[in-house]
Amino acid sequence: MRHYLIINGPNLNQLGKREPDVYGKETLDDLVAFIEEFAKQQSFAVTCKQSNYEGEIIGWIHEASSDYDGIVINPAAFTHYSYAIRDALAGQSLPVIEVHLSNIHKREPFRHQSVTAPVVIGQIVGLGFHGYQLALTYLEAHVN
Amino acid sequence: MRHYLIINGPNLNQLGKREPDVYGKETLDDLVAFIEEFAKQQSFAVTCKQSNYEGEIIGWIHEASSDYDGIVINPAAFTHYSYAIRDALAGQSLPVIEVHLSNIHKREPFRHQSVTAPVVIGQIVGLGFHGYQLALTYLEAHVN
Amino acid sequence: MRHYLIINGPNLNQLGKREPDVYGKETLDDLVAFIEEFAKQQSFAVTCKQSNYEGEIIGWIHEASSDYDGIVINPAAFTHYSYAIRDALAGQSLPVIEVHLSNIHKREPFRHQSVTAPVVIGQIVGLGFHGYQLALTYLEAHVN
Amino acid sequence: MRHYLIINGPNLNQLGKREPDVYGKETLDDLVAFIEEFAKQQSFAVTCKQSNYEGEIIGWIHEASSDYDGIVINPAAFTHYSYAIRDALAGQSLPVIEVHLSNIHKREPFRHQSVTAPVVIGQIVGLGFHGYQLALTYLEAHVN
Amino acid sequence: MRHYLIINGPNLNQLGKREPDVYGKETLDDLVAFIEEFAKQQSFAVTCKQSNYEGEIIGWIHEASSDYDGIVINPAAFTHYSYAIRDALAGQSLPVIEVHLSNIHKREPFRHQSVTAPVVIGQIVGLGFHGYQLALTYLEAHVN
Amino acid sequence: MRHYLIINGPNLNQLGKREPDVYGKETLDDLVAFIEEFAKQQSFAVTCKQSNYEGEIIGWIHEASSDYDGIVINPAAFTHYSYAIRDALAGQSLPVIEVHLSNIHKREPFRHQSVTAPVVIGQIVGLGFHGYQLALTYLEAHVN
Amino acid sequence: MRHYLIINGPNLNQLGKREPDVYGKETLDDLVAFIEEFAKQQSFAVTCKQSNYEGEIIGWIHEASSDYDGIVINPAAFTHYSYAIRDALAGQSLPVIEVHLSNIHKREPFRHQSVTAPVVIGQIVGLGFHGYQLALTYLEAHVN
Amino acid sequence: MRHYLIINGPNLNQLGKREPDVYGKETLDDLVAFIEEFAKQQSFAVTCKQSNYEGEIIGWIHEASSDYDGIVINPAAFTHYSYAIRDALAGQSLPVIEVHLSNIHKREPFRHQSVTAPVVIGQIVGLGFHGYQLALTYLEAHVN
Amino acid sequence: MRHYLIINGPNLNQLGKREPDVYGKETLDDLVAFIEEFAKQQSFAVTCKQSNYEGEIIGWIHEASSDYDGIVINPAAFTHYSYAIRDALAGQSLPVIEVHLSNIHKREPFRHQSVTAPVVIGQIVGLGFHGYQLALTYLEAHVN
Amino acid sequence: MRHYLIINGPNLNQLGKREPDVYGKETLDDLVAFIEEFAKQQSFAVTCKQSNYEGEIIGWIHEASSDYDGIVINPAAFTHYSYAIRDALAGQSLPVIEVHLSNIHKREPFRHQSVTAPVVIGQIVGLGFHGYQLALTYLEAHVN
Amino acid sequence: MRHYLIINGPNLNQLGKREPDVYGKETLDDLVAFIEEFAKQQSFAVTCKQSNYEGEIIGWIHEASSDYDGIVINPAAFTHYSYAIRDALAGQSLPVIEVHLSNIHKREPFRHQSVTAPVVIGQIVGLGFHGYQLALTYLEAHVN
Amino acid sequence: MRHYLIINGPNLNQLGKREPDVYGKETLDDLVAFIEEFAKQQSFAVTCKQSNYEGEIIGWIHEASSDYDGIVINPAAFTHYSYAIRDALAGQSLPVIEVHLSNIHKREPFRHQSVTAPVVIGQIVGLGFHGYQLALTYLEAHVN
Repeated sequence: MRHYLIINGPNLNQLGKREPDVYGKETLDDLVAFIEEFAKQQSFAVTCKQSNYEGEIIGWIHEASSDYDGIVINPAAFTHYSYAIRDALAGQSLPVIEVHLSNIHKREPFRHQSVTAPVVIGQIVGLGFHGYQLALTYLEAHVN
Repeated sequence: MRHYLIINGPNLNQLGKREPDVYGKETLDDLVAFIEEFAKQQSFAVTCKQSNYEGEIIGWIHEASSDYDGIVINPAAFTHYSYAIRDALAGQSLPVIEVHLSNIHKREPFRHQSVTAPVVIGQIVGLGFHGYQLALTYLEAHVN
Repeated sequence: MRHYLIINGPNLNQLGKREPDVYGKETLDDLVAFIEEFAKQQSFAVTCKQSNYEGEIIGWIHEASSDYDGIVINPAAFTHYSYAIRDALAGQSLPVIEVHLSNIHKREPFRHQSVTAPVVIGQIVGLGFHGYQLALTYLEAHVN
Repeated sequence: MRHYLIINGPNLNQLGKREPDVYGKETLDDLVAFIEEFAKQQSFAVTCKQSNYEGEIIGWIHEASSDYDGIVINPAAFTHYSYAIRDALAGQSLPVIEVHLSNIHKREPFRHQSVTAPVVIGQIVGLGFHGYQLALTYLEAHVN
Repeated sequence: MRHYLIINGPNLNQLGKREPDVYGKETLDDLVAFIEEFAKQQSFAVTCKQSNYEGEIIGWIHEASSDYDGIVINPAAFTHYSYAIRDALAGQSLPVIEVHLSNIHKREPFRHQSVTAPVVIGQIVGLGFHGYQLALTYLEAHVN
Repeated sequence: MRHYLIINGPNLNQLGKREPDVYGKETLDDLVAFIEEFAKQQSFAVTCKQSNYEGEIIGWIHEASSDYDGIVINPAAFTHYSYAIRDALAGQSLPVIEVHLSNIHKREPFRHQSVTAPVVIGQIVGLGFHGYQLALTYLEAHVN
Repeated sequence: MRHYLIINGPNLNQLGKREPDVYGKETLDDLVAFIEEFAKQQSFAVTCKQSNYEGEIIGWIHEASSDYDGIVINPAAFTHYSYAIRDALAGQSLPVIEVHLSNIHKREPFRHQSVTAPVVIGQIVGLGFHGYQLALTYLEAHVN
Repeated sequence: MRHYLIINGPNLNQLGKREPDVYGKETLDDLVAFIEEFAKQQSFAVTCKQSNYEGEIIGWIHEASSDYDGIVINPAAFTHYSYAIRDALAGQSLPVIEVHLSNIHKREPFRHQSVTAPVVIGQIVGLGFHGYQLALTYLEAHVN
Repeated sequence: MRHYLIINGPNLNQLGKREPDVYGKETLDDLVAFIEEFAKQQSFAVTCKQSNYEGEIIGWIHEASSDYDGIVINPAAFTHYSYAIRDALAGQSLPVIEVHLSNIHKREPFRHQSVTAPVVIGQIVGLGFHGYQLALTYLEAHVN
Repeated sequence: MRHYLIINGPNLNQLGKREPDVYGKETLDDLVAFIEEFAKQQSFAVTCKQSNYEGEIIGWIHEASSDYDGIVINPAAFTHYSYAIRDALAGQSLPVIEVHLSNIHKREPFRHQSVTAPVVIGQIVGLGFHGYQLALTYLEAHVN
Repeated sequence: MRHYLIINGPNLNQLGKREPDVYGKETLDDLVAFIEEFAKQQSFAVTCKQSNYEGEIIGWIHEASSDYDGIVINPAAFTHYSYAIRDALAGQSLPVIEVHLSNIHKREPFRHQSVTAPVVIGQIVGLGFHGYQLALTYLEAHVN
Repeated sequence: MRHYLIINGPNLNQLGKREPDVYGKETLDDLVAFIEEFAKQQSFAVTCKQSNYEGEIIGWIHEASSDYDGIVINPAAFTHYSYAIRDALAGQSLPVIEVHLSNIHKREPFRHQSVTAPVVIGQIVGLGFHGYQLALTYLEAHVN
């Protein structure tokens, strides 16, 4: 049974509490439950982690290849400046999909650029919780 | 039964013939067959159109709302400069997902900017044919 | 009796349906009627054309000098990137006035620049349907 | 009877003497006479003022709402850097039309940007003295 | 006998009528005659096409490889923004030479950049009708 | 008893009338009363001046050192382009605090840059009338 | 009794040791003592925290609303690139004042831009330890 | 006997008091005396004026041609943004020399650009009081 | 016996595993062994640390001066955006040399700029493991 | 018999030795022989010079008009920054064609700009040795 | 008797032949004669040199201090990019005045920037041959 | 015995005389002696050359491969604009190390960019004379 790592970046632990007009009212727990439910239906395993520490996320990426078959990452604000996470992603061999809950192209200009996108397979933007589901669907198809 | 319009922009009729190292060997017919097969499985209808004419694509967008429940568009090179297609998309009310076969963030700088992304719901980048499938999956979930 | 050509660019056939908070509820037909009514009052002739095709608009400009005494053009989104329409306008000798329904300087930054404005006589911005009327008033005065 | 304020910015008192190849040979007095003649024909009142002092123009704008029904302003060189005039215009409620005698888009790059245009209703560019006439025509239609 | 496709972009059908101080007084027919005469002398075939439609030019490029041995293209104003024509050129395998009648580096800044030049073999600029002749001379030498 | 000069720049005489959603409903008179009340409580003197003329403000700054112990300045729109006021401030020796009623970093990009800030002691932004009070509190502590 | 959280960012634990010509000789302990003394005088409580870890600061901001009535933050170098702290600040509802000890506008260009300023109430720059005092004075007035 | 107008811009009335390390200890009166002494020696007349008001300087330029044979102007800070003074200079026919006391190219970047230099005959930079003398020397030679 | 601190930044713990075509096959352990061997030969002590946490690296720099005689730092991706590490380096007094394994000037544009280089003594780029050796050689010579 | 000067700029003496994947294996001697052979066939004379010294090339251009009927120049790397060669070319009256062996638009961004192109008749890019031949062919036609 | 070195940069040996509408008809010999005549009148010595070689000019600057009392340099096109001449000028102690015959601010944008101006005393622009005379007049006054 | 070429660029013959606060008091002769002493100790040969002529340096690079085993180059000011030296370095096969005496990242912005760095193995910045020694140490290790 394949196993995927879901990484959520800074402030996503505040989901549902933070800017509900942008991100909706559902919380990180809701998101994890949604993903786990989908994994169960599709018969694969998922582990969901969240951190506000760039260094911790880098560590998870380094260690991912021994335990997982793919990564879905929402780097949140780190998307726009963390060349360290970019290097971590580029320096490992699992397939990675980048996900953003909101459509970053509709928001402030600094959110239009992703420094991590050039080193992942693909990016899903603006589709809310479904973005994670679609990313996992792709990984299942891709890993097979 | 819901019905979706799939619009492919300039040069996508050359798929499989053009730059196979970037886009793979499968053709536009293969893409259409792949989408239609998926639609059949999921019990919705699709109509796939392709044009090299910006004006023709604008016309399809204008007329879409009377016949369809949503749009999946890959504007190809028009993504990067067609403010006219942007205006057409912004001026109608169907849900729209933008899809790109390749990861545009890995390619030339002019491909990193999308002038259409700010007026659609979301964007799926770099996931090949699966991008269309995932976009339709999202629309099905979203339209319901 | 003088005869003027009115050219409306891409998406203007959607007027009234598209973004009514920006453009109002009146349609292209209403605009044409408004212009024709004014022409009748002022005793000159007008022909109103609209296209979503850059190439078609270029052709109309090329052929205008044999049939008309002046041009009023609202290039819509083409304003911001169509160097081909610019060249067409620069390469003919009729007087041309550029018109925009909305105040483009209040909107997105890409709308602040007009690539066609440097090759016309003048520009009228933000005055709605009246912009066309004023442009024709000017041409009448100017052509005499 | 409606009453409009016409404000002409710095150097326009030199009209006819200054750069006649750009601005023609007619003077500010000729412009004022032309506008007054038109006002008389159309049965509304106008007051024409000119100043080379940014501070004086700001004061006129502040006080305009008690005496006038609309403003036509040609901020001349202040167009390109006077954020103070912009703030004055934004901070009052009369309808304002910005006018430029010459087509600023054909001239030096610094003249292509207007810092005042985003806070007025519309802009008329390059139509010489007629620009003022058309602006007043619009105000008459708009105020009614 | 080798056969080359000559593509002329928007407004070149106005050659001789449009801006004669920049482009001279000879027409597109003169240019075609000049090219055909040269082809006859050199014993190869040419087909000359002109369009103001980006989409039509893209279609010609797609279909060129089955009928021709090389392409000479003057994309005119499309040179400066048509990433769609760039993609069409990049996605086929015939040798292509880009030609401009006037020295684009002596004209407005927007004409200094060519988005198509990076995907062709070479570019000939500023040599008038001779540019086409020299491009064909090169293709003859190159194809052999 | 120490005596401070409070300088308010262009359009601040319209406070309360102009853009109340940005600046609130209180007027310049209210601001002056608020400052004078505070000065009385704290046992120092204040003189409040306002001008829409850059030249007048420059003059006040030149003459300030003979009559005052410090300056609080809100240069309003001049903040963003008046190098002349910057030079006036840099060329005198009283302590100066720059104050802005609204948070200029939340507003249009041109308001994010202050050309005067590099030549003053410090800047207080976005705290409304309290900004003046805090600036005076600082000057009292600093001058002692 | 109201209770405020004071957050000091990276390197501020070195205050007094680091670049004394820029920041003075007083240490972080001196700053904390100064703030606590002021709080005691004014009858409110303060808690002062310092971290060199972006992730730790983000966590403090997330948890602040349950224990505090307002935040004073000096993000130090994070001011200029931490979009993650910006998102944390934007995603909570306490009033926040940003403080900088030195006048950042007098220093290197990269220090002139604050990515956090657009999401706080206001900013106090260049007033040394007094900046914190004034920020707390404002919060007291504002919270009441 | 020829007569020249010397215009000194904002803050130059503070010469000798303001930033003596940049501008030296001599005052505007010293400068005027130095110029008048030189004029006497050389047998021409000079009138020296100084203003902190952009509008007043514009007025002097407009009226100069009836009384003077040439202008020497040090626009001080206005050099870097006053397009209104630029237009005034461009719109009259006397020969003009621009002078700066200090070497503006050695100072802050905003001082490296002159918006007035493109419309004068020449510029003398960094030579202190001698710059005025040399400018007048040139005018004498040039006017003859 | 002198003692140097060697700091390796984010992802360098993956050396040898990550992008071996850029960084070679040798691991961080190999690098540490190489440096320790060299230190032994040259009779000085070294302590090698690595972290993916910006905050941890800042802490090491703060504490270095009490235990070490100099620092060799490879900030890896932090080189390009960590103004916090820059401030930490600027705020201590040990001699520091910045080292990069690969030639950052040959790689992506974002790697061409170092925000830390302006506050260290010097930089050694592109010389692989030898870069550390050369840096230590320099420090030995410099500290004596 | 007409006589043309061929100037090759810095590093072209290394042709065939330097970067053969970009420039091919043929040497400067081969290029000279190729050109001389062509000149002989066409009955005109050529003189080929090469220098790595900007000053020497400038001297050749100055003296060319007395001995030659036209110039073909490949300024190599000087193309991108030598305003001195640009001035030399602009300051003489022979017809000049600029040639580049490789397609400079396909290479590094700094090679996309030519500072010399605006002052020559035209430019031939990317056609290898044939570029020189075509340039001479053009000059023959042009000089007659 | 004081002795000054006059250095003229590339292409100035073509003076009078090159672009006479910009530079006039007088030659370098005329300029030298004009300067020598003036030196004789004023009782100081001059040596005039011209070179198209950057390296030769650098050498002259290095050796100047042993033989001369000051330098007048017109670096011509080198003004805009020769950081090597800038370094040479910065690394010697004679007073230097930079002269340009034409008003470089009226010409192409690349001529508006001088890389040498920040390291000289002052600059005289646009005053033709008189510029050299005025520079020498200043040096005489300054050296005394 | 290996033999290395040391190339010093423009103005380095003035070392010790020029800007001693930046470069120290030791001369080029001292540098050469220092390098030769080191070479003798390490048993390899060195040849040290210096030129102010870009063309001469290019020639030395072209001819280096027949006589030397590696190059150490300090291109001085040419570092920042000589694409010709860059091409010379890229077009030969010896290992090259770029050295700068001072930390160019601490100086003027134009010195932060090196156009030669992308084509060499590595760069050593800011370590004074030791930089050359370390570069040679590396070459010895690398060549073996």
